[in-house]
Amino acid sequence: MADAGMILNVARRIADVRKQGTGVVAVVSAMGDTTDGLIDLAHSVSDQPRPRELDLLLSTGELVSCTLLTMALADLGQEAVSLTGSQAGIHTDTSHGRARIHRVDTVRMLKELKEGRIVVVAGFQGITEDEDVTTLGRGGSDTTAVALAAALEADRCEVYTDVDGIYTADPKIVPEARKLSEISYDEMLELANYGAKMHPRSIELGAVYNIPIYVASSFNQTPGTLIHGNADKREMEDRIKVTGIACTTNVAKITVRGVPDRPGVAAALFEPLAQSAISVDTIIQNTSEDRTTDISFTVSGHDLKAALAKVEELTEEIGFAALISEADLAAVSIVGSGMQHTPGYASRMFRVLADGNVNIDMITTSEIRISCIIREEQAQEAVRLLHRGFQLDELDPVNEPETK
Amino acid sequence: MADAGMILNVARRIADVRKQGTGVVAVVSAMGDTTDGLIDLAHSVSDQPRPRELDLLLSTGELVSCTLLTMALADLGQEAVSLTGSQAGIHTDTSHGRARIHRVDTVRMLKELKEGRIVVVAGFQGITEDEDVTTLGRGGSDTTAVALAAALEADRCEVYTDVDGIYTADPKIVPEARKLSEISYDEMLELANYGAKMHPRSIELGAVYNIPIYVASSFNQTPGTLIHGNADKREMEDRIKVTGIACTTNVAKITVRGVPDRPGVAAALFEPLAQSAISVDTIIQNTSEDRTTDISFTVSGHDLKAALAKVEELTEEIGFAALISEADLAAVSIVGSGMQHTPGYASRMFRVLADGNVNIDMITTSEIRISCIIREEQAQEAVRLLHRGFQLDELDPVNEPETK
Repeated sequence: MADAGMILNVARRIADVRKQGTGVVAVVSAMGDTTDGLIDLAHSVSDQPRPRELDLLLSTGELVSCTLLTMALADLGQEAVSLTGSQAGIHTDTSHGRARIHRVDTVRMLKELKEGRIVVVAGFQGITEDEDVTTLGRGGSDTTAVALAAALEADRCEVYTDVDGIYTADPKIVPEARKLSEISYDEMLELANYGAKMHPRSIELGAVYNIPIYVASSFNQTPGTLIHGNADKREMEDRIKVTGIACTTNVAKITVRGVPDRPGVAAALFEPLAQSAISVDTIIQNTSEDRTTDISFTVSGHDLKAALAKVEELTEEIGFAALISEADLAAVSIVGSGMQHTPGYASRMFRVLADGNVNIDMITTSEIRISCIIREEQAQEAVRLLHRGFQLDELDPVNEPETK
Repeated sequence: MADAGMILNVARRIADVRKQGTGVVAVVSAMGDTTDGLIDLAHSVSDQPRPRELDLLLSTGELVSCTLLTMALADLGQEAVSLTGSQAGIHTDTSHGRARIHRVDTVRMLKELKEGRIVVVAGFQGITEDEDVTTLGRGGSDTTAVALAAALEADRCEVYTDVDGIYTADPKIVPEARKLSEISYDEMLELANYGAKMHPRSIELGAVYNIPIYVASSFNQTPGTLIHGNADKREMEDRIKVTGIACTTNVAKITVRGVPDRPGVAAALFEPLAQSAISVDTIIQNTSEDRTTDISFTVSGHDLKAALAKVEELTEEIGFAALISEADLAAVSIVGSGMQHTPGYASRMFRVLADGNVNIDMITTSEIRISCIIREEQAQEAVRLLHRGFQLDELDPVNEPETK
């Protein structure tokens, strides 16, 4: 939520839903740049704010918007009650700053719903067994919303945010990108992991509990996109199976040359990186004949320096020949759940890129995604080429207009 | 606490105390005008913010300063932990905005203290049996501090604030006013009720549990004032028994003339005022011979209009003859616990005021206080006259220099 005016907007929208007789649990995030402001405040008194304290500090951002929304609802004549993460029964582990939800105790929420109140929950936060406040980290408020929807066995979870839905590609890069009326969890996960503006975490949770997630704008009433489990089935018969193009920039690649080809080498390499909280994305390893191998992997450009330092420490233990790194790369991906049943997508992708003089550095595939690592400076052009090459601007074969 | 720089100051001071081997529980208030800012925010989304929501909103102010102080302490190498009112076990009634503390569950605080940590508690807040957050209202953070000191059986409670101690009169009015090194609970209560910058509530609690309260500046290291129970005894032998001069401005007086002198009339008059949350201060009633009486009472100037309206509604029920009001009055008081044992203070006070041409409108007395209602425009002069008249500028007979 952006500011006070926004809160009144959101209140009116929630009141409208409530008037239709639906029980509503609303999860709110902090207003505008509140969270960044609180982080700055922490750094003004401490070089290294303790994670436990930082969590309690950051949790106040959602408490503020949560109480304001509840007050605004009351002014609209709607009975409403604000709940902290703790009061809403959101129990997490003790990983401050990136806590994971263990369970949701719905007693208080059900009691308030039963009394006809709109329940407004502070997102992004929970509580440990010791009653310490935790925050959930990136994508936290969306994750809270999906978790509550699952725990309360809600019909669906609606996410109102600063994008008005999921597009076939980033509209800033591809002006002719189309908004999808629906998309499957799996496709959304691939898009989210590769650049679309939803954190994969909430999608994963939605998929596990089969909670339909509707993503729409909090600024206007334009129809958004429904992320759900049944989207797969309909697509099976469709002519063109690519749903969207994703793009991640600021990718860096590290190649470890001449690694002895013996068991345990990959673990020896990646375990220390994981322990340093460096997230490794794509990993490629080619076996060779001389009993050594090359291992390449990508990390965020932010983590490149730390990752290189970590791998260098392992020189003796692993005994590799050389360490090479490359920054300023990007990953472009085509995503579509139909791809797994139909051949020819990969070759078509490579042809489109080759025709556009985009050189491919690495290739990885999942069941429903094909990604190419390319030079970052060519990323936008590559997305436009692929969007056109797979005719995403021409038709909507994947997503028929909704008839509800 | 004013700002981030202030937090670092306070952290250093607490760290110094801790280094002497003392266990420390620090209670913090919100920074600067945070609370006013939050109230403005509430009014930006709601004409009448619900008290329950407002409490949760306001409680975030103390959470912010509480976590920041804890981070700053950690940076100074001090193990510290921040606790919300709930985590600190502060249980209150359900009167949102002016909750009263029922009990303090010290388990968590004692556990943290035992592990050698400085415990930093968010003041001004507590939690109901239903786990709803409450705020304590005016004087809330001081009250939290004294309540925790009592519950933890602490040696004393230190209040660092924007005044550097208790003076014989307001130094802004009387430049020669002296700071008291000590004062009794009772005297402090009278001074607090009549204008000194401490809320009577925390003093009352300190008196009940016999917790010495040390009031000093958070800006500098000047010695402050110790409020305690033993201050009475020493004063018994002192020559001059007046401890200080208090002054309340913006006082209004309402007189109800010709009230039938029968049982239940006072109750019929003051119960509706209490129900409207109008605080009545001084009440004077004179019986007369013709079976009617006049009742005069004072209220804050802010409440005059509402109080008059309320009393007017009672015209028929009570059957009085006339209703007269007067605004722009002030109450000046002399306070001293020795007065109750020594005659002549009242007459000396009246003489001092008469010699200064200050007309006295009403007089009330308690065991250790004599108050006169006068014209507000003469209030400052009256305080100066009384300060000089009782030689408060010349000696410190009440408070010998401390020898600890």
